[in-house]
Amino acid sequence: MINEEQQKKDERYMQMALDEAHLALEAGEIPIGAVVVCKDRVVSRAHNLTETLCDVTAHAEMQAITAAANTLGGKYLTECTLYVTVEPCTMCAGAIGWAQIPRIVYGAPDDKRGYHLLAPHAFHPKAQVTQGVLEDECRELMQNFFKAKR
Amino acid sequence: MINEEQQKKDERYMQMALDEAHLALEAGEIPIGAVVVCKDRVVSRAHNLTETLCDVTAHAEMQAITAAANTLGGKYLTECTLYVTVEPCTMCAGAIGWAQIPRIVYGAPDDKRGYHLLAPHAFHPKAQVTQGVLEDECRELMQNFFKAKR
Repeated sequence: MINEEQQKKDERYMQMALDEAHLALEAGEIPIGAVVVCKDRVVSRAHNLTETLCDVTAHAEMQAITAAANTLGGKYLTECTLYVTVEPCTMCAGAIGWAQIPRIVYGAPDDKRGYHLLAPHAFHPKAQVTQGVLEDECRELMQNFFKAKR
Repeated sequence: MINEEQQKKDERYMQMALDEAHLALEAGEIPIGAVVVCKDRVVSRAHNLTETLCDVTAHAEMQAITAAANTLGGKYLTECTLYVTVEPCTMCAGAIGWAQIPRIVYGAPDDKRGYHLLAPHAFHPKAQVTQGVLEDECRELMQNFFKAKR
C-alpha cells in the first residue's frame, strides 16, 4: 500500500519523466522518458534517442541506468527507484534486473512490447512495481505521436 | 541444416568472438565476446566491459550491436549474424530482437541467465539460432574465470 506522501512523490518524479518524454517528442523520437531517484535525489534523467543515435539500445531506461551508475559511482542501483513513462520492454527489463533496481514505477502499460508479456521474471525477485502513475498523460503522449505519424 | 562451408565460417567468426572474450579476461571482466558479420564482412567486435565502464548494460552483444549500427549507418541489422561466446541474457536478447538480427550463433549455453529461460520469444520470430559452435572453448573460458575468482 502506497501512502499519500509517496503517491505525491511518485507523481512529481513521473512528471519529470514526462518532461523528458516531451524532449524526445521534440527530437522526433518515440516519446518515452525516464528518471532514476536515489534517496529523494534525482541521479539521472534521460529520454529515448534511438533515432538520433541510430541505436536500438538507446531507450530512455538504458540511458538513465548508465547515467545513474555514473553519478553514483557503482553499477548496482540497489537504493534507487526507476520512473519511466511507459512499461519497460524485454531489453530494459533485463537491464533493470542486472542493476538490481528494487522499485520500478511506470505510467502507461505496453501490451505489445512490455516485459509483462515477454519477460515477466526479468526484474529482481524482490522488486516492487507500481504502475499507472500519470497513466493518461503518458499514454496520450504516445497515442498522439503515433497518430501524427500515420 | 548447416553445410560444411557455413560451419567453417561459423567457427572462424566464433574464434574472433573468443579472441574478444580473452581481451575481456585480461581486463578482469567476465570473458564474453561478440562479433557482428554482414555479408561475410565483420562490422563490429566487442567484449564485456561492465566492470571497466561501471555499467550493467555494457555486455559484449550490446556494444557489438551499437557499433555495427554505427558502421552500417542503420539501426536495423537485418542482414547480419551475431556471434557470441555465451548464450545471450534477457537484456541482450531484447536488443537482438529490436535490431531484427536474423541469425544468432552462440557457443556455450547459460542455464541460469540465458534468454531461453527468461525471454524465449525475444528474438524476431523468424530468427535462426545456432548453438554449440566452439562450445567447449567458450565454456572453459567462463569456468576458469569463475574458478579463479573463488
